[in-house]
Amino acid sequence: MTQLPVGATTEDPDVLAAYARDRASFCPVGQPAALVRARSVDDVVETLQWAYENRVPVIPQGARTGLSGGANAVDGCVLLSLEKMDRILEIDVEEQIAVVQPGVINARLAAAVAEKGLYYPPDPGSKDISSIGGNVATNAGGMCCVKYGVTGDFVRALQVVLADGRVTRTGRRTAKGVAGYDLTRLFVGSEGTLGVVTEVTVALRSAAARPLTAVAFFGDAADAGRAVAHYLGQGFRPSVLEFMDAASIKAISKIKDLGFPPGTGAVLIAQSDAGNNAAEELKAFERSARACHATDVVVGDDPAEGDLLMQGRRLAGQSFEEYPGSLIDDVCVPRGKLAELIAGVERIAAEHDVMIACVGHAGDGNMHPTVLFDLDQAEQAQRAFDAVMRLGLDLGGTITGEHGVGLLKREWLARELDEAALWAHHQVKQGLDPRGILNPGRVVSSASGGRASPDRRSS
Amino acid sequence: MTQLPVGATTEDPDVLAAYARDRASFCPVGQPAALVRARSVDDVVETLQWAYENRVPVIPQGARTGLSGGANAVDGCVLLSLEKMDRILEIDVEEQIAVVQPGVINARLAAAVAEKGLYYPPDPGSKDISSIGGNVATNAGGMCCVKYGVTGDFVRALQVVLADGRVTRTGRRTAKGVAGYDLTRLFVGSEGTLGVVTEVTVALRSAAARPLTAVAFFGDAADAGRAVAHYLGQGFRPSVLEFMDAASIKAISKIKDLGFPPGTGAVLIAQSDAGNNAAEELKAFERSARACHATDVVVGDDPAEGDLLMQGRRLAGQSFEEYPGSLIDDVCVPRGKLAELIAGVERIAAEHDVMIACVGHAGDGNMHPTVLFDLDQAEQAQRAFDAVMRLGLDLGGTITGEHGVGLLKREWLARELDEAALWAHHQVKQGLDPRGILNPGRVVSSASGGRASPDRRSS
Repeated sequence: MTQLPVGATTEDPDVLAAYARDRASFCPVGQPAALVRARSVDDVVETLQWAYENRVPVIPQGARTGLSGGANAVDGCVLLSLEKMDRILEIDVEEQIAVVQPGVINARLAAAVAEKGLYYPPDPGSKDISSIGGNVATNAGGMCCVKYGVTGDFVRALQVVLADGRVTRTGRRTAKGVAGYDLTRLFVGSEGTLGVVTEVTVALRSAAARPLTAVAFFGDAADAGRAVAHYLGQGFRPSVLEFMDAASIKAISKIKDLGFPPGTGAVLIAQSDAGNNAAEELKAFERSARACHATDVVVGDDPAEGDLLMQGRRLAGQSFEEYPGSLIDDVCVPRGKLAELIAGVERIAAEHDVMIACVGHAGDGNMHPTVLFDLDQAEQAQRAFDAVMRLGLDLGGTITGEHGVGLLKREWLARELDEAALWAHHQVKQGLDPRGILNPGRVVSSASGGRASPDRRSS
Repeated sequence: MTQLPVGATTEDPDVLAAYARDRASFCPVGQPAALVRARSVDDVVETLQWAYENRVPVIPQGARTGLSGGANAVDGCVLLSLEKMDRILEIDVEEQIAVVQPGVINARLAAAVAEKGLYYPPDPGSKDISSIGGNVATNAGGMCCVKYGVTGDFVRALQVVLADGRVTRTGRRTAKGVAGYDLTRLFVGSEGTLGVVTEVTVALRSAAARPLTAVAFFGDAADAGRAVAHYLGQGFRPSVLEFMDAASIKAISKIKDLGFPPGTGAVLIAQSDAGNNAAEELKAFERSARACHATDVVVGDDPAEGDLLMQGRRLAGQSFEEYPGSLIDDVCVPRGKLAELIAGVERIAAEHDVMIACVGHAGDGNMHPTVLFDLDQAEQAQRAFDAVMRLGLDLGGTITGEHGVGLLKREWLARELDEAALWAHHQVKQGLDPRGILNPGRVVSSASGGRASPDRRSS
């Protein structure tokens, strides 16, 4: 290929192989031609100018912790890694904003602003390893979304390099602004298909009060789903409302003893950081849980105990990776349908003879049923996974709450969106990336990429 | 013109004249060819199919209470009024969402959900007369934004008729979802230039506690700006934080006695609906106000008194209309720059020999300096108005916080956005409205429309 004019380029096959994919299972991985480790906006500009001129696909990459193949290589592409652009450029305490490069790791930003008494709420499960740029690309969620919202709710402004290498700024530092189309929100969640984000201005909040925690135990997992709807339907906004079923408790317990009573079918963990209102919010949670047949509810008064419990919950992803094969789903349903989703997932697991461990951000209706299987069960696992997505849609939900479409769910997008909406997607993509070089095959379909399937699995 | 196939069409010149414009001053108004009062999605579809076929401009209209000429006619256009599509289709208490047609008046929705113990926060000053569709078109703000956010933060899903008459749905009923580009947020604030919104699904919250109110009096208006930054910089999130200067207090007092002490240079009104935390939040406000030289601070314990005070604040717009000429601006600056904005507006008023009354949503940095003038001062008024916008940009702000670009500020958009961002706007517009029939001249420039100027003023 024509020589890329950027200094930080490698064509070393071993390095390329290491950067060729994210953490998704069952997604195709192509053969990249080169990797650029951008260290500045200029590196990104030069890469895109060259790629635009030469019509070479560019795959923007953050920390490659994504779960949908959004950062996987296509044949002949340039991998454009932003991980070295990892500086926190500014933390403005008075305006409660921070300006960061895309490679900054989520937890590093959260810790840096916490030192100044501020709070960056979006906390995806991958927060210790995922980057802000990747969080923006997928509009990542997390545990705090039930009260505070998702990544996009905290993005004020972006610097973006467009497909042809031009640099633009969207949004503003002010709290409000309606001067033109909301391009900021258009780029957020666009999975690198419309431009490459090179700077992010995020809104911050003041540090919340240290939360109080309650945990409710259920014999029947679907009862936990009913308790969520019962509680939130009264208008409470806990800062955390998480669900774990028996299979996920079992998986986590292999790494860390949660001390839960034997026979637990599911638990809900609720937290409130509402200061003087916290105890009242958790008392209401206890009432809802008991009304929905909780076998026990413990309301803690020691924040440290709550921290330990949340650490346990956060181990779910890691514990699932201990299984020979795992395929994590990400469906989101109206909270009134949670109980049906939970029951349906149990039924699907039985029908396809695989284990499905279910954890999730129950307060948002956003669940992560994760198919755990032996390697000879890949076909069953894929069918179970598809059945869960179909169930989510049937319940009025979405095929992806926070992980993104990537390659994994691209074919499913057409089942969620109507024809006119798909046309609008194509028009936007065509308008902003007329040569189709930016992360081809992601979100909107094209010739490149390919269907996610176990046949094309690589690792 | 070729006969429009829609039943509810009129070409009566008097009716057309009545519908030809919104409430903006200084904006061109063209001669419409017809008015369609849509009563159903089918009416909208038929109108757009016909207009697309015949390349006739379509101006979507809500309640025509806009302040930027966004709904003004262009010559030969079809005015497409959505005001008769005014049904509240659904209020789902458990999921805390409502589904409404675009013609529903904001305050009617707020009242309807309040009856069910729910709360629709976005409360533009025009809430008693403006429609949800118009609020969506401009991404309207209001007084509660400082705590709760703007209209766009509460829009979950839209039904939109595209330029060629195809109907699409964007977004979802669930709390989270990232399946594809965020077209919902793209349509919100697009001022009818990308599609016609025919149904809106909004997120609701549970009713907030009845707020407590504090009012702080200042001799020097800029001190009030400093107090806002001082207070919010500590991380408090009041549910209301409004500013009124001496000129606006004087204007309002002609309609309603506010009972403020003589010599008041400015006031701040703060409210907190944070339940058990409310008193503490207002005590902190009092400390900040006194630290910034407030002459007096009154913290009320009677919610009824707070209601009266807020009613007074809400009379500002009406009181300004009593003047022979008025031109309301809508700039938003970082809150640390509020004091400079306030002082700058006073200076501009003196320089151009016009009165500028200033009220605003101080907590967001979103101010409405309003030039009040005699009819022979129109040129001075326009120059003062431009000077305020320039000042806002110089202070790192935006030319429009919540009113939109419309015709009034279209030429200013190029001063706020860079060239690549303007190009991206054009690409999006071209992609979704390839024949350029949807509200031409708004947001992105085109041959139609024209510069806002006092010469083209009509009324």
